[in-house]
Amino acid sequence: MTKEKYNSDLLRSDETSKHLKFLKLEVPFVLKSGETIEDLLVAYETYGTLNSNKSNAVLVCHAISGDSHVAKHSKDDLPGWWDIMVGPKKPIDTDQYFVICPNVLGGCKGSTGPNSLNPKTGKPYGPEFPQITVEDMVAAQNVLIEHLGIDSLLCITGGSMGGFQSIQWAKQYPEKVKSVAGMATSARLTNQALAFDIVGRNAIKKDPRFKLGNYYDSNEKPEDGLAIARMLAHITYLSKESMKEKFDQKRFEPKEDPAEFEKQFSVGSYLAYQGTKFVDRFDANSYIILSTAIDYFDLGKNIKELKANLKKTSCEWLFVSFSSDWLYPPFQSEELVDALVELDKPVSYCCIDSEAGHDAFLLENEVGQYGSITSSFLKKISGSLEEQKAKKSTLTSTNIFFDNRLDLNFISGLVSKGDRVLDLGCEDGTLLRELRKKSCSKLLGIEIDPKKVIDSFETGIEIINSDINIGLNRFNNDQFDVTILSQTLQSIKNVEKTIQQILRISKKAIISFPNFAFKPLREMLFHQGKAPKLEGLYGYNWYNTPNRRFPTIADFEEFCNEQNILVKESFFIDTENKEFIKEDPNLNADTAIFVLSKN
Amino acid sequence: MTKEKYNSDLLRSDETSKHLKFLKLEVPFVLKSGETIEDLLVAYETYGTLNSNKSNAVLVCHAISGDSHVAKHSKDDLPGWWDIMVGPKKPIDTDQYFVICPNVLGGCKGSTGPNSLNPKTGKPYGPEFPQITVEDMVAAQNVLIEHLGIDSLLCITGGSMGGFQSIQWAKQYPEKVKSVAGMATSARLTNQALAFDIVGRNAIKKDPRFKLGNYYDSNEKPEDGLAIARMLAHITYLSKESMKEKFDQKRFEPKEDPAEFEKQFSVGSYLAYQGTKFVDRFDANSYIILSTAIDYFDLGKNIKELKANLKKTSCEWLFVSFSSDWLYPPFQSEELVDALVELDKPVSYCCIDSEAGHDAFLLENEVGQYGSITSSFLKKISGSLEEQKAKKSTLTSTNIFFDNRLDLNFISGLVSKGDRVLDLGCEDGTLLRELRKKSCSKLLGIEIDPKKVIDSFETGIEIINSDINIGLNRFNNDQFDVTILSQTLQSIKNVEKTIQQILRISKKAIISFPNFAFKPLREMLFHQGKAPKLEGLYGYNWYNTPNRRFPTIADFEEFCNEQNILVKESFFIDTENKEFIKEDPNLNADTAIFVLSKN
Repeated sequence: MTKEKYNSDLLRSDETSKHLKFLKLEVPFVLKSGETIEDLLVAYETYGTLNSNKSNAVLVCHAISGDSHVAKHSKDDLPGWWDIMVGPKKPIDTDQYFVICPNVLGGCKGSTGPNSLNPKTGKPYGPEFPQITVEDMVAAQNVLIEHLGIDSLLCITGGSMGGFQSIQWAKQYPEKVKSVAGMATSARLTNQALAFDIVGRNAIKKDPRFKLGNYYDSNEKPEDGLAIARMLAHITYLSKESMKEKFDQKRFEPKEDPAEFEKQFSVGSYLAYQGTKFVDRFDANSYIILSTAIDYFDLGKNIKELKANLKKTSCEWLFVSFSSDWLYPPFQSEELVDALVELDKPVSYCCIDSEAGHDAFLLENEVGQYGSITSSFLKKISGSLEEQKAKKSTLTSTNIFFDNRLDLNFISGLVSKGDRVLDLGCEDGTLLRELRKKSCSKLLGIEIDPKKVIDSFETGIEIINSDINIGLNRFNNDQFDVTILSQTLQSIKNVEKTIQQILRISKKAIISFPNFAFKPLREMLFHQGKAPKLEGLYGYNWYNTPNRRFPTIADFEEFCNEQNILVKESFFIDTENKEFIKEDPNLNADTAIFVLSKN
Repeated sequence: MTKEKYNSDLLRSDETSKHLKFLKLEVPFVLKSGETIEDLLVAYETYGTLNSNKSNAVLVCHAISGDSHVAKHSKDDLPGWWDIMVGPKKPIDTDQYFVICPNVLGGCKGSTGPNSLNPKTGKPYGPEFPQITVEDMVAAQNVLIEHLGIDSLLCITGGSMGGFQSIQWAKQYPEKVKSVAGMATSARLTNQALAFDIVGRNAIKKDPRFKLGNYYDSNEKPEDGLAIARMLAHITYLSKESMKEKFDQKRFEPKEDPAEFEKQFSVGSYLAYQGTKFVDRFDANSYIILSTAIDYFDLGKNIKELKANLKKTSCEWLFVSFSSDWLYPPFQSEELVDALVELDKPVSYCCIDSEAGHDAFLLENEVGQYGSITSSFLKKISGSLEEQKAKKSTLTSTNIFFDNRLDLNFISGLVSKGDRVLDLGCEDGTLLRELRKKSCSKLLGIEIDPKKVIDSFETGIEIINSDINIGLNRFNNDQFDVTILSQTLQSIKNVEKTIQQILRISKKAIISFPNFAFKPLREMLFHQGKAPKLEGLYGYNWYNTPNRRFPTIADFEEFCNEQNILVKESFFIDTENKEFIKEDPNLNADTAIFVLSKN
C-alpha cells in the first residue's frame, strides 16, 4: 500500500514511517452528515502481537495534536507521544496486549484529512474537506478494526480528544468494546474550553495566508494564525501552578528564540517556541476540522441526557482525572461517573492529585499513578489479575476490623449471596475483597483518598474516588441491597443526611462504630476529668483526633428512633475479649453494629 | 481647553463630553524610561464637591478598557462603568466625597496615548508612542491631583489594572495617600494571565492591517486582531460557573450577530459581539501599550520583594477579592495582605464568595458586598463612621461571651492600654469593639466567614478574612502583645500548630474554652451513657455539633505542660451562676480562661 503524496508531507521521518501502515477503503466512506469520502486512508501503527483468539487488542486514541506513533517500536526509534505508557513491561504492556494506534480521520499524519488529495479533483481537499465528527473518527477506526479481524476490543483508551473517541466507541459499537479507560476527558467541553477553541480558530481563519483554507498551492501557510491558536491552547494544557513553577523565577528572561512572537517574557518565548514548532508539524485546516469536531462532541449537558446516550453501552468503565486540569476539570469526569452509576454500569474513577494541569496524562511525574491504575484495570478486564496478589493491608487505625476475625466474619455474615453491596469509606478494599467469597452480584467501594483508591485498583476492586459527604446523590433509590458504613460514622460531617442517603439507596444499612459510652471511656471522663481516650479508634488525644463525632449506643438508638429509622438488628462487641455483649451493651461493648432499614 | 482631534475620535458622545475636562501640561512629562511626552493631556471627570480643606477626594482608577466616565453625572447621562458604586448615596457617595476619575495615560479616551498627535511630527504617535508603565500612569494622575490643589487623597480605588494603579500610588506618593481600596487585583500578573496577554497582543500585531502600528492613515484598522484579543481577554473575565450559567442550555444556538467571527456556538457569538463592540471603541495601539504596562507591573514575586516595595507606604489598606476570579485569584490579594501584615501596616481583607469571575467587581450581583465594604472603609478613613452604630450582635452560639458581663469585663481586664491585640475567630468584632475602650495600639481580627467580615467592617474593625488554621504564618514573631482565642479552640483542626503559632506571634495568649469535664457533662455520659450535651457551646447533638475538640481543663493543663507552655494565669467560671470557681474547677467550672506565654 502506498502513501499519498500530501499525506506524507507532514509525516515524521523514515524511521517512523517504516512502521507506519496504511489501510485503504475501497468503497466510499459515508459520514454521519451523509457526505462521503472516497479512498479513505487510515494510517496506523501496531505494537505487540494479536493473540490467537484476538482478545488482547487495545486501541489507543490520540489527542488533537497526536498521531499514530504512540510509542517507540525499538530503542532507536523516534520517541512516541506515550512512551511512558505503551511498551514492553509498561502499563499498557505490549508483551501482553496488541496495541493499535490509528491517526485520526481529519488529521494530517497519514489518515485522510484536509491535506489529502481529493480523488474527485486531484487536488488537496482544503476547505472542501467535510466537517467530520468524533462519530466519524470512530467509524474510520472501526474500518481498521474490522480489517484486522478483531470483533472485540479489550480496551479503548486515550486522553482529552482521545477520551472523546473512547467514550464514543462504547456508544457507537457497544458490542465491540469490553472496556474504556478515559483520561482527562469529559462528555462535552465546558463553555470556557469551547470559547478558547473558537478564539483559536478565528486566529487561523483571520490569517490572510489562510485564504479560506486554500493555501496548499501557496508558498506561505497561515503560520501566524496556527501558532497563535497553538499558543493559546498550550496555556490551557498547563496549570497556574505548573506555570508558576516554570516561569516565575525568571519572568523577564525570555529564551533566545527564532520566533518573532515574543521577546519580553519567559512564558512568551516558551509559548512562541511551542507555536512555531507546531506550525512545522501540523496542518491548519486539519486543526480547524479536528477542533470543530471536538467542539461538537456532546453526550449531554446534564445527567439525563448523558444517561440516554450511555444507556446502551455494555463495557466496563474507568475514568481518571487530574486535580489541576481546568480544561477538562474533574467535575466533568464525575458527571460521566454519575450517569454510569445511575445506569448501574460498572465504573471506577480516580482523581489524581497533580499540579500539571491537563497535560498530566502525558507526563512522567504522574504516570506512577495513572499508569498503575491503567495497568490494574487492563489486568482485571483481561482476567490476568492475580486475585490474592493484594498488597499487605494498608488499613489505617480508623478501621479496627480484620485485626479480629470476629468482626470480619460477622459483617460478612450479614451479606447474602447475590447482594449488591456498597462500602462507604472502603479504604483499600479489604472488606470488599473478603466479600468476593460471597458471590455478590455487585461490589462497589467509595473512598476519598486517591492513594488508597490506587491500592484498591491493584486488587481489582470496583471503586469510585469520592467524598461520601457529597457523593451519595448519584445513586438511585434501592440501587444496593446492603450499604456498609464501617467505622466511618465518627468522621462524617453531616450524619443525618448521610444516613438518610444510605437508606434511600439501599435496602439495608450496616453501620458500625466505636461506642463512646464504653465503661473505661465513661470512667476516664467521670473520675479523671479527662477527654476519654483508649486504644484504636479512640486512641487519639483530644487535640489531634481525626474523629469529629462521639456517638454512644444509646445516642444512636435515640437518633434512629427520632429519625424514624428501623433498627432491624444490633450487635455489640467487646473486641478486646472477642465476645458479643448482651448485658448493658452501652456500658460493656466497645463496638456497635447496627443493621438498619427504612421504616 | 480644547480636545485634540485624534483623542476625540473614540470619545463616546456629546452628552459625555460635556462633563469631560482636560488638563494640559505645559512642560514636558518625563517618563520612568527617561523619554518625554510633550503637551501631556489628562482627560478626567469629577463628581461631587471638593470640601474646603480638600480632604474628601477619592481617586477612581479604571481598568484596561475603562475611561473617565465612571458614572452618570445626571439621570439622562450615558451609563458610567461603575454607576453601581459611584453617585449620590452610592457606596462611593458623591454627596460626601469628591470623586476624580482620569482617563489613563496611554489610553484612547482623551488622555495622551498612541492615537494622540505627536507635537513633534504633527501626526499620531502610533508605534512611536513610548512604552509607558503603571508608574507613569500614576505620575500623570499626580499632575492632575496637583493641578486640583489636593495634597492628600482620602482614598484611591479601582479593580484589576485600576488596582495596580492604586497600589502604585501608595508606593510612589506615600505622603499623598490616606488609603487604598484595591479590588480583584494583585502585585503582578500570574504567568497564566501574562500568557493570555501575550497571545492577545500577538493576534493584534499579526493582523496585516496593523502595519506595525501605522494604521491611522488607513481606512482599515487591525479590527480582527483587536477583536480576537478582546474575545480572549473576555473569557478570562468570566468564570466557568458564569459561562455555564450563560451558555450551557443553548450551546448550539448562536445569537444573530453581524460579526463573522462565529456563527456556530452561543458562547462564540457572544464573544464575537464583545470583540466587535470593542473594536468600535478602542484603539489597538493603546491596547498594546496598556496591556504591556500591566504585564510589566511587578511589585515582587515573593513576600520579601513585596515587602521591600511596600515598605515606605503609609496608608490604610483594603483588598477585596472574589472567589471565582481566576485572572487575579484571591491568593494574590492574600500575598499583598501577607506582606503588609509582616510590615505591620494596617490592612483589611475580604474574599467575597462569587461565581462571576474577575468581572464581579463591576457587577450588580456582588455590589451589596463589596459596595458595603468600600462604603464602611471610606467612612472609617474619613472619620464619619458612627462608632456605636454597630448592628445588633450577630454572635452565634459558638461564642458564649457577652451574654455575660462577667466574661466580657474579664477578658477586657487582661488587656492593657497600648497593647497590640489579635482576636482569632473574631466573628463580627464584638470583643474588638469592647477593647476600643482600652486605647490599644492595634486591634486586628481574623474571621473565616466573609459575611461576618462584612458586618465587622460596618463598625470600622480592622479585619482579615482568613482561616486561622492556615493564616497565622503571615504574622511576625511577637507582632502582638495579646492574641485571643475566645471559644474557638474546640473547632480548630490543628490545635498544636495553632497554639505554637499564637505563642510565636504574641507575647501572651488568652485562650478560653468550654470545659468538657464540667460536672453535668461528666454525669450525663457516666450515668446516662449519652454523649454530653448542655446549653450554649455544648448545646448540640453528637451528630450535628460544629465542635470537633472536647477539651477538659485537666487535658489542657496537661497539654501545656507537655508542650512546655507557661500557664501564667488561669481562671475558671461557672457562667450560669456568674461566679469564679476556685474549688476543683475541672468539675465545677463550665468555662476556662488560660493566659499563656512561651516558657
